[in-house]
Amino acid sequence: MAAKSLFVALCVLLEAAAFGPVPRITWEHKEIHLTHLKVEGVLNYTSLLLSEDENILYVGAREVIFAVKSINITEKIHEAYWKVSDEKSDACGKKGKSRQTECFNFIRVLQPLGDNVLYVCGTHAFQPTCDHLDLNTFQFLGKNEDGKGRCPFDPAHSYTSVMVDGELYSATSNNFLGSEPIIFRHSQQSQLRTEYAVPWLNEPNFVYADVIRAPQSNPEGDDDKVYFFFTEVSVEFDFLSKLLIPRIARVCKGDQGGLRTLQKKWTSFLKAKLICYSPENNFIFNVINDVFILKSPDLKEPVIYGVFTSNLNNVGISAVCAYNVSAVEAVFATGKYMQSATVEQSHTKWVRFNGEIPKPRPGACINNEARSLNYTSSLNLPDKTLRFVKDHPLIEDSVDPIGNKPRLMIQNVAFTQIVVDQVTALDGITYDIMFLSTDKGKLLKAVNQQSEMRIIEEIVLFPDMEPVQNLLLSTKQRKRYIYAGSSVGVVQTPVAFCEKFTSCIECALTRDPYCAWNKVESSCVNIFQDRNDDRLLIQALNGDTSQCQDSIDKGTENTVMHTVKSGSMVELSCSHKSKLASLVWTFNNERLSDNNPRYRLLHKGILIFNVTEVDTGTYQCLFQESLMGNLNSQLIISYVIELEKIPPPLLTTFH
Amino acid sequence: MAAKSLFVALCVLLEAAAFGPVPRITWEHKEIHLTHLKVEGVLNYTSLLLSEDENILYVGAREVIFAVKSINITEKIHEAYWKVSDEKSDACGKKGKSRQTECFNFIRVLQPLGDNVLYVCGTHAFQPTCDHLDLNTFQFLGKNEDGKGRCPFDPAHSYTSVMVDGELYSATSNNFLGSEPIIFRHSQQSQLRTEYAVPWLNEPNFVYADVIRAPQSNPEGDDDKVYFFFTEVSVEFDFLSKLLIPRIARVCKGDQGGLRTLQKKWTSFLKAKLICYSPENNFIFNVINDVFILKSPDLKEPVIYGVFTSNLNNVGISAVCAYNVSAVEAVFATGKYMQSATVEQSHTKWVRFNGEIPKPRPGACINNEARSLNYTSSLNLPDKTLRFVKDHPLIEDSVDPIGNKPRLMIQNVAFTQIVVDQVTALDGITYDIMFLSTDKGKLLKAVNQQSEMRIIEEIVLFPDMEPVQNLLLSTKQRKRYIYAGSSVGVVQTPVAFCEKFTSCIECALTRDPYCAWNKVESSCVNIFQDRNDDRLLIQALNGDTSQCQDSIDKGTENTVMHTVKSGSMVELSCSHKSKLASLVWTFNNERLSDNNPRYRLLHKGILIFNVTEVDTGTYQCLFQESLMGNLNSQLIISYVIELEKIPPPLLTTFH
Repeated sequence: MAAKSLFVALCVLLEAAAFGPVPRITWEHKEIHLTHLKVEGVLNYTSLLLSEDENILYVGAREVIFAVKSINITEKIHEAYWKVSDEKSDACGKKGKSRQTECFNFIRVLQPLGDNVLYVCGTHAFQPTCDHLDLNTFQFLGKNEDGKGRCPFDPAHSYTSVMVDGELYSATSNNFLGSEPIIFRHSQQSQLRTEYAVPWLNEPNFVYADVIRAPQSNPEGDDDKVYFFFTEVSVEFDFLSKLLIPRIARVCKGDQGGLRTLQKKWTSFLKAKLICYSPENNFIFNVINDVFILKSPDLKEPVIYGVFTSNLNNVGISAVCAYNVSAVEAVFATGKYMQSATVEQSHTKWVRFNGEIPKPRPGACINNEARSLNYTSSLNLPDKTLRFVKDHPLIEDSVDPIGNKPRLMIQNVAFTQIVVDQVTALDGITYDIMFLSTDKGKLLKAVNQQSEMRIIEEIVLFPDMEPVQNLLLSTKQRKRYIYAGSSVGVVQTPVAFCEKFTSCIECALTRDPYCAWNKVESSCVNIFQDRNDDRLLIQALNGDTSQCQDSIDKGTENTVMHTVKSGSMVELSCSHKSKLASLVWTFNNERLSDNNPRYRLLHKGILIFNVTEVDTGTYQCLFQESLMGNLNSQLIISYVIELEKIPPPLLTTFH
Repeated sequence: MAAKSLFVALCVLLEAAAFGPVPRITWEHKEIHLTHLKVEGVLNYTSLLLSEDENILYVGAREVIFAVKSINITEKIHEAYWKVSDEKSDACGKKGKSRQTECFNFIRVLQPLGDNVLYVCGTHAFQPTCDHLDLNTFQFLGKNEDGKGRCPFDPAHSYTSVMVDGELYSATSNNFLGSEPIIFRHSQQSQLRTEYAVPWLNEPNFVYADVIRAPQSNPEGDDDKVYFFFTEVSVEFDFLSKLLIPRIARVCKGDQGGLRTLQKKWTSFLKAKLICYSPENNFIFNVINDVFILKSPDLKEPVIYGVFTSNLNNVGISAVCAYNVSAVEAVFATGKYMQSATVEQSHTKWVRFNGEIPKPRPGACINNEARSLNYTSSLNLPDKTLRFVKDHPLIEDSVDPIGNKPRLMIQNVAFTQIVVDQVTALDGITYDIMFLSTDKGKLLKAVNQQSEMRIIEEIVLFPDMEPVQNLLLSTKQRKRYIYAGSSVGVVQTPVAFCEKFTSCIECALTRDPYCAWNKVESSCVNIFQDRNDDRLLIQALNGDTSQCQDSIDKGTENTVMHTVKSGSMVELSCSHKSKLASLVWTFNNERLSDNNPRYRLLHKGILIFNVTEVDTGTYQCLFQESLMGNLNSQLIISYVIELEKIPPPLLTTFH
């Protein structure tokens, strides 16, 4: 049929156009039960902080902070408003900013400071201000600290921060115009900042910061390190337009700045390029949007996950790259430095520095090697080392992803945020499950199984396609949750929708490490929520669904009777969520083929024309999905069609 | 309905994913009459040469040359085979090349040499060889010239050539390995070539060459110039991978080489980057695939059209950029030179040369200025000028496209070749009509109308999706044709399919400058083929179709009667070629809406369920297309539905 063949043609076109795995299932917003936090008149729910011990989620929005139950974010526990005074708002408006959209107090820093205090900073009508929020009273203490360097002036400017042992490490812009980037440590003991110079930071867009602790057994006597992730304008590369490049920068926690050179500046600031490149097809992902550092006692070392897009020929490709922390440390510990050189009197070019490198190594933390040379603090590092690192903050070596290629590449989507959960499934294998939010309000759940990257499902978090701006994962609760913040609200979603699958085969075909079929209860359950006896549970992550054959198929009980008039047309509907499955119809156990003029197979059903006696009987709709070369079938619904008994001819005159 | 809504959803997705204009009409291969040349056992029809005077198309394929009638290429006039001997083929096989696919004589040069001779070169089993083909006898003269520098050794290597006043200018690789690129002039008087050095040519992929004559009135006394177009590895730019860059290079016809420096080498070889960049969305088209130089007495100056793709994040975007020859000449005549500089002893960087430039200007043709300094030939140019151009062949200034952006950008297609026709339509405006072939065997016809780039139609030339490797336009004949060569054959297509449109509105809505509605004949005609009296013709290139209202609509006569049984289902079909149009159904002059359960609107028709007396009457299908804010309608077909007469009421008798 014409419409059908066109439909198929379009599908083919679509597949030819896009690459990357297709989400197996899309959960529309209305199909699933998601929990929302959305308060009338409140916008920009962009700062999220989870207290797993207290089971509280703190939400920083425009001019307000909420404390809500992490198990159910609709349940508000506290709220604390922090508004901009009319005078401040007026003054902001007079500086040319919009009183309707910009001259508010956008909460940008929300970090725990001791047990009962949150450290909070907001843009405060282009006068960044920080305060302490007492968690007992949920009242601000009215500290009114100057927030410069910790919080941007402009809500449109980038920012990130992390609290490490009571000291706030932040990266943002340090002035009204947003032209002065800064990486800053706010501390009672030692406030430090970056040099304001192009080689240090060149129009950066900060996306993430986190601490990575030195291992307990640490033969080098190394320090804890704080890593910053951003995209900036590259100084070392050249093309027709400005070239953006993703960077990783790090500072040492023990840094005290220099005594003369680099006084109150980082002596341990080094940066390198963070490569997310697919050599196979020359895809360069040169914009980093977010990072998640997976730290787990089970892991040999932390793994850095980054989500990337591209600003070169960007027709909507996104990627995930993963990096070993040891690879990052090796680059900073042993990589070559870059230096700028003047060519022909007027051009500055960045090339590898081939000269002699001062000792201790510039930009290194104070470690055993430095201490053996009698340098016990950055304050007494030799001037030669400090002057060198001031001029050579850029390492030439790149931080390359694990496997030297992206973990996942996908078209027609722009990833905004990432969190990664680790799940040890019933097969004993630990899976890294990536949750990727998009600029269209969706959440993708991706996992590598049998060397293949699959997207188990896609969840429409914000039906109005609001970009997801913040993502948090809660794993300490019995049921694991994801919290997603956007301009319009916060959405809480469980990590899996196991209960949606009503047969063993369907539950197994999801190959979702969170889900398993409970043989006794005949239901698809979340293994973390309901893990009693693994022997009762069936998972088929390796694609072998044979265990399901013994279990009861509830689907077979779903039978519908239809009594129809001879000569009429009947439509039987049937559909399945899996985009990887196909539907098959049988009539009295014979498969219906596609080219019979008596009926028409539709995408979600079948039309039977001009029903006569020969069309009566049982119609069954099965879904079929191939997995590891095996075809899995499951009956979805049965219809029994009967003809109306022809009434005595008298009655037929009254139509 | 579910299937329909999914279909719509898919269409939306598709549109969101792709950008650029959609071809209004796609002509499938079977729908149109195309003429083919395809000879059993002959492959690689990649060299085409048209003799407009003789109305002959010469086709160079693998080991054979055909002469066919340009009006109908199935009519073969002559053929001349030029095969590789068994010994040569053996020798080629022994060098590690494939006897099945490579060790043949692939014709790569096919150029006119005087009135009755063609100059022909072939790869000749990796021993490039040239010969003369006598057009009177269609026999080779057996010259067996060494074809090195004119024809590649390897059929996979790039090549281009142009014959200028009996001298062959060629660009290809000069050795067996393909590692030595060359731009060469084969001439009795003065054979010249490029230096074999990275700054001159760096892994180039040659796509086109042509001569641009100095204007008749030429105050500078300038020379004719031969331009070469290629993509090469850039020396001046740096990124994570090798950066390709499109180049335009030129030499002067009068160049005789240097006397000592650059002896038998070009003294006039200069190259510059050819930019095809969209600043708006940072799309960089850094691979050039083909060029067409539009030369016309009506034009102030020739216009260079190039088709581009990208090898950076290439998910299938193509572009057309156009350049004024005066802009090209200005870059070569006044642009800054680039020079390589060694940085920190070990890095080579290319930067602008800011020193003093020798006189006469290095790389310039011998013009009045040079002659006034007593330099009348390149042979007596000062050594300083020659040494400079030897080391500085690259100009820093870029050749920028007209309007500083692409003429056309489109996704999910890779353009391979371009020809451009100029058509003065009935409105007196001259349109540049671009014919763009693709790597999937299609031809797109694009034109800029009312500041909007439109794709009038798309023609499936090769149903097996063979890439189009050569495109020629014939305009001297009464009917204009395009010839497209591929691996499997040559296809000849008219430039327009006016006769396919059977109503004035449909003819006008094509907005095809070639087509007009003949009021007297009531047919859509090609204005070049049938241009008698413009007053009889209707075109609506500006979108105003009001003139059509007076003309007779043949469509209204298309009425079909259907007599059907009560209670049965009826399918009425109707479709239209235009992808920009929609179909509208009326029943007894009332428009049918989409949400009536009695019928279902399909993409190419309508289904009416359970027909009863109330459904009898006239169904009309109209197509509607918006143009410049006006909705144009045209009746396509009318159906009249009647019910079968009910047989005598034998059964309904009273008892």
